[in-house]
Amino acid sequence: MDFVGSHILSVDQFDRGDVELVFRVADRMEPFAARQKITRVLEGAILSNMFFEPSTRTRVSFGSAFNLLGGEVRETTDIKVSAISKGESLYDSARVLSGYSDVIAMRHPEAGSVAEFARASRVPVINGGDGPNEHPSQALLDLYTIRKEMAARGATIDGLRIALVGDLKFGRAVHSLCKLLGRFNGIHFNLVSPPELTAPDDIVDALKSARHSVNELFRLEDGIRDVDILYVTRTQEERFPSQEEADRYRGLFHVNQHIYTEFCEPNTVIMHPLPRDSRTIANELDHDLDQNPNLAIFRQTDNGVLVRMALFAMVLDVVDQVERSARDVNWYTAKRDPGRT
Amino acid sequence: MDFVGSHILSVDQFDRGDVELVFRVADRMEPFAARQKITRVLEGAILSNMFFEPSTRTRVSFGSAFNLLGGEVRETTDIKVSAISKGESLYDSARVLSGYSDVIAMRHPEAGSVAEFARASRVPVINGGDGPNEHPSQALLDLYTIRKEMAARGATIDGLRIALVGDLKFGRAVHSLCKLLGRFNGIHFNLVSPPELTAPDDIVDALKSARHSVNELFRLEDGIRDVDILYVTRTQEERFPSQEEADRYRGLFHVNQHIYTEFCEPNTVIMHPLPRDSRTIANELDHDLDQNPNLAIFRQTDNGVLVRMALFAMVLDVVDQVERSARDVNWYTAKRDPGRT
Amino acid sequence: MDFVGSHILSVDQFDRGDVELVFRVADRMEPFAARQKITRVLEGAILSNMFFEPSTRTRVSFGSAFNLLGGEVRETTDIKVSAISKGESLYDSARVLSGYSDVIAMRHPEAGSVAEFARASRVPVINGGDGPNEHPSQALLDLYTIRKEMAARGATIDGLRIALVGDLKFGRAVHSLCKLLGRFNGIHFNLVSPPELTAPDDIVDALKSARHSVNELFRLEDGIRDVDILYVTRTQEERFPSQEEADRYRGLFHVNQHIYTEFCEPNTVIMHPLPRDSRTIANELDHDLDQNPNLAIFRQTDNGVLVRMALFAMVLDVVDQVERSARDVNWYTAKRDPGRT
Repeated sequence: MDFVGSHILSVDQFDRGDVELVFRVADRMEPFAARQKITRVLEGAILSNMFFEPSTRTRVSFGSAFNLLGGEVRETTDIKVSAISKGESLYDSARVLSGYSDVIAMRHPEAGSVAEFARASRVPVINGGDGPNEHPSQALLDLYTIRKEMAARGATIDGLRIALVGDLKFGRAVHSLCKLLGRFNGIHFNLVSPPELTAPDDIVDALKSARHSVNELFRLEDGIRDVDILYVTRTQEERFPSQEEADRYRGLFHVNQHIYTEFCEPNTVIMHPLPRDSRTIANELDHDLDQNPNLAIFRQTDNGVLVRMALFAMVLDVVDQVERSARDVNWYTAKRDPGRT
Repeated sequence: MDFVGSHILSVDQFDRGDVELVFRVADRMEPFAARQKITRVLEGAILSNMFFEPSTRTRVSFGSAFNLLGGEVRETTDIKVSAISKGESLYDSARVLSGYSDVIAMRHPEAGSVAEFARASRVPVINGGDGPNEHPSQALLDLYTIRKEMAARGATIDGLRIALVGDLKFGRAVHSLCKLLGRFNGIHFNLVSPPELTAPDDIVDALKSARHSVNELFRLEDGIRDVDILYVTRTQEERFPSQEEADRYRGLFHVNQHIYTEFCEPNTVIMHPLPRDSRTIANELDHDLDQNPNLAIFRQTDNGVLVRMALFAMVLDVVDQVERSARDVNWYTAKRDPGRT
Repeated sequence: MDFVGSHILSVDQFDRGDVELVFRVADRMEPFAARQKITRVLEGAILSNMFFEPSTRTRVSFGSAFNLLGGEVRETTDIKVSAISKGESLYDSARVLSGYSDVIAMRHPEAGSVAEFARASRVPVINGGDGPNEHPSQALLDLYTIRKEMAARGATIDGLRIALVGDLKFGRAVHSLCKLLGRFNGIHFNLVSPPELTAPDDIVDALKSARHSVNELFRLEDGIRDVDILYVTRTQEERFPSQEEADRYRGLFHVNQHIYTEFCEPNTVIMHPLPRDSRTIANELDHDLDQNPNLAIFRQTDNGVLVRMALFAMVLDVVDQVERSARDVNWYTAKRDPGRT
């Protein structure tokens, strides 16, 4: 795809070459995100951060990524704050608001709304999540994390063995990640879910016809052996027909240090799209793993800044100017181990 | 008026020379708002954007205008977030908050509140709308748009023929625009409204005594022939005594491409203060006009950035420094046709 | 204490030397806060301003202080906007969000929550108030104001005579100020409160064992004679057993110009942590004092910017670079009398 001036709406836009290009640009953002260097390449540019649904993490990540490139951020964080509630069409909102900024990052609770907005926008729009539909920068940061973690182990994405655990029926993050992984070669998928929450047929069929190996499993201990990546998501318990039925599976989807030690290979990487639900009733990923160096969940969110910086730089066509204007950071920066949290 | 250090509270502050001065400065902001050039003239300055009532459009427009001049923006978007709800006087809020910024843009639901705030503020305050009372930057951007659209047709504001359509009784935007137009010469006003929603007598009388031509009309097709500008506003249907009565007028105030073609001169400019209500029940300005090149509603909001940049630059006395520090934009910018949407 | 890279969570961290160091740095911030000069020393740095409880004043003060040093601000202003409401632990929020910024300012309604957040954060955290517990920058700005006001009268903090008036039992600001004052020598405290709302024993005992003079009084006119500083707080009337009992004390704690003239020494400085409750039912500090040059309440909030700039500069280790990069302000700035409001 041609990134310059493009909307980023769906992982379907990205072929393998596109994904790898984003990752190479993201690598170059590391010194800036790690506060070793600063760049002012987007000084004077404005991001309109439009979040019509709460998401502190994604909103601040987009905003900080733009700030790290030197740009300014104008935010809208509440749909009730918007003229949309007064009967204004998305078309009008897009035409108007795209006159106030150079690029827009947008989250909206309704599937398709961000694409509809983008059609009327006069500046590039990046989808920050449109309900159950798409959240492409999340899938890219997940895959970017996998690539980095595997590289640290001397391996690549090709040939990866990954367990995806939890609600695979409704989980937007898992669907998009599967699509992106499907662009690579010889991936071994363990899809671990309750029988009621298996991955949609079209996802599974597409992986199989691209000659990936796909195992659908219902018990945690069956699925998490012999994998490089253990990707945990929350079980959407409220979707079960009854609480009793939900209770049947809860034990299977509680990952903690004990289960990790008993069933996983020693260096298995643990991932989660976050937020993890740490209430006792859910707790799909226990805090007793917080000191485990293979827990990559905070490296994921750190990588999100790199990927979003890359997308902004590519869409606004400043990739090759970023380093040219770099200078050293002159303030105290906390030690951030780039390899380990 | 002397703009430097002044509050901008009301269109009553502006004589014709003031209006024309603002417009000449706004013209000079075009390359910056169009992202051809950037300026950092207000680098280090802080705008406090205080919106005690929701208004995404106006809030982001003020904020982006300030960013485009190089300044920073601190925002407050919810009156419940404020100490005002704990019994603090507007006087205290103004004294305190004016210590945190160089200029304040403020919207508040109560008439007169922004002026009261300004009296206690130690920095200039720009009224971004105080309930039914004033919204001077809206009136200025409307008139600036009229000037530009007429100039593209080889004409001026003097001698303008304009139809103002909709709720002329309560519409703040229309009242302020009439006042500003009244400073010019030989304006022909067609005031088209339901009989219950005619413009206030003092507005009409002032226009007549300044020797403008004023026709009050009740049917859309009578009012929109032979005008240069068709300025549509929403009908405040909820103010009618009954829904049946409201229904009698609804057809008259629904402007669409068919009505435009049948009744208007070929190049009549269509304006609206936005947001337009696109729900079927209202729909005073139909989306079938969106491709009509004479639809100026998005040029209006674009012009709003220019006018607000001009006001900031004039109040903070940096007009002549803006171009001095200009440099070219180095990122991708969408094609924005300055003449047509 | 070593400020570089430290969390600022409690006044207990500050010994007298630390306090005096903060004040000397705050003095150097004056030309920047007064918009005589600008510095860009933190250009490229990001403050995450996380307010999980409304506080316009403190939030904007932190944000403006960071902007005045050249940094950018990303804000979160509503706990419902946060993943915390979806079962995310403070630990996760802190790990994630500290990857997006260089320093965090945080307010939270629960005592201890900011310290808990700080333990997991990878960047320095400044406590902007954690419920009834601590608000160290408020105590520092109060004491900094006292130092400045006394210096203008040729005096020092040592030997200060101060009346603290109002709810001394629950008032967080008063407790912290007492602790900081206790680090100095020979302070004369008049603690004026209703009998039900006297200061906690541990506060009073600590002051006495440090050989300060402490008088506990119940009538306003007994406590406000012979003091240099009259520090008024709101009476938390809702905590009284009955409205009748609350009514008994209301007159005592209403400070106005008449009472000031009758009972106070001519140059007694009037302070208040703000917001003051100006509703008739409360009105602990009357607006008829607004023109009194000894009313220091708005100098307090102005000083808050200086103190917060100092804390940011010290924690991020840029104190000695601030002036090096200074340049003159080139826009209109309102006259701000640094000595008098």
